[in-house]
Amino acid sequence: MAKNMTLLWGSGSPPCWRVMIALEEKGLQGYNSRLLSFDKEEIKSQEVFNINPRGQVPSFKHGDVIVNESYAACFYLESQFKSQGTKLIPDSTEEQALMYQRMFEGLTFYDKLTAVIFYEYYVPEDERLASAVKRHKEALSAELKLWEGYLHKTGSGSNLAGKSFTLADVVIFPTVATLFRFGLSEKRYPRLGEYYALLRERPSIKASWPPHWLENTKGQDTLNDI
Amino acid sequence: MAKNMTLLWGSGSPPCWRVMIALEEKGLQGYNSRLLSFDKEEIKSQEVFNINPRGQVPSFKHGDVIVNESYAACFYLESQFKSQGTKLIPDSTEEQALMYQRMFEGLTFYDKLTAVIFYEYYVPEDERLASAVKRHKEALSAELKLWEGYLHKTGSGSNLAGKSFTLADVVIFPTVATLFRFGLSEKRYPRLGEYYALLRERPSIKASWPPHWLENTKGQDTLNDI
Repeated sequence: MAKNMTLLWGSGSPPCWRVMIALEEKGLQGYNSRLLSFDKEEIKSQEVFNINPRGQVPSFKHGDVIVNESYAACFYLESQFKSQGTKLIPDSTEEQALMYQRMFEGLTFYDKLTAVIFYEYYVPEDERLASAVKRHKEALSAELKLWEGYLHKTGSGSNLAGKSFTLADVVIFPTVATLFRFGLSEKRYPRLGEYYALLRERPSIKASWPPHWLENTKGQDTLNDI
Repeated sequence: MAKNMTLLWGSGSPPCWRVMIALEEKGLQGYNSRLLSFDKEEIKSQEVFNINPRGQVPSFKHGDVIVNESYAACFYLESQFKSQGTKLIPDSTEEQALMYQRMFEGLTFYDKLTAVIFYEYYVPEDERLASAVKRHKEALSAELKLWEGYLHKTGSGSNLAGKSFTLADVVIFPTVATLFRFGLSEKRYPRLGEYYALLRERPSIKASWPPHWLENTKGQDTLNDI
């Protein structure tokens, strides 16, 4: 079905996961799926650079067309396969506006998450500071409160932009799942916990669940004091 | 024409400028334009929080619909006013794919720019390190080389995604203009210089040029060693 598509990806990478969910939702199973490890050798390999000059995953190719940025690939797939699978951009003005708004707030959400959980990856050892870690944790905590409020407002059992599952869920669910994988408390963040429980059972999400999370179901406790 | 729209914005903010260019391109002049200073009092005012819980500009309202994130507002305006003004998402698969790809790389581009020019704004005084500034400048320099390459590939006189002016130009031109405002060398980055010279004359961009850049035409020299 999607034999002319190739996705290079890494397990547990939220940007990669976004593209995989979009592919599932659009009924594009059967693409050429290349799971890479995050070792420098694999990520900075010629295979990756042939598609992505940034040497990053996801790297995505459809025929001769290359769309590597995860949000870009999701928009592209929805646009090219509009009438196939799940419709990921709602028609109603209100839902569409909310979808766009949440999608792009989702980038801030993801940045604030990674500033905490990937701090040691981003910041060289001799530049690391306890005060910066504390600051990033406080920023993440404030961000989480915003999202709890958003989910409180849309109501129980709702997706991020309302009744329908949209691109906002495609791109933000992997952030939410990563929060809980890294120890976020469902008790302190009940709305996010409920959203997580609702969507983790969705077929597209189950089908693309990070394989190393399945192998080792115990996550980290980095976020259990947030 | 656009009397039911309100935009709160700050002069010289690339995210605000994106929305202003999109409004111009879609023929939506006449919106309620509220220029705020970046003083805490104005940015963290009730007027801003009434529209934007993050207390940031741009803050944008269309009737009862709120779309504050700059990329979200651009997508929203193109979707709601598809047949009005400039068509900002091309039909051809290749141009569309390239547009999405560049748009989202544009966020990385902007992040790498702001990590250098707004370093003192983002990082508290007692956490600032010369090694971090050096690292951010190197990252920006590598990023600039990528964009020089992209513009070399699309060819002289081209927009970012090809022949047409698209959402990629709407969201990335303000980053490019900011680079030169902060002293980037057109000699060392000739393709970016050419792109800047081409688009700065475009009516939507002239009409929305940051007023304090017009008042004081001399910029900073932060980037003249990049």
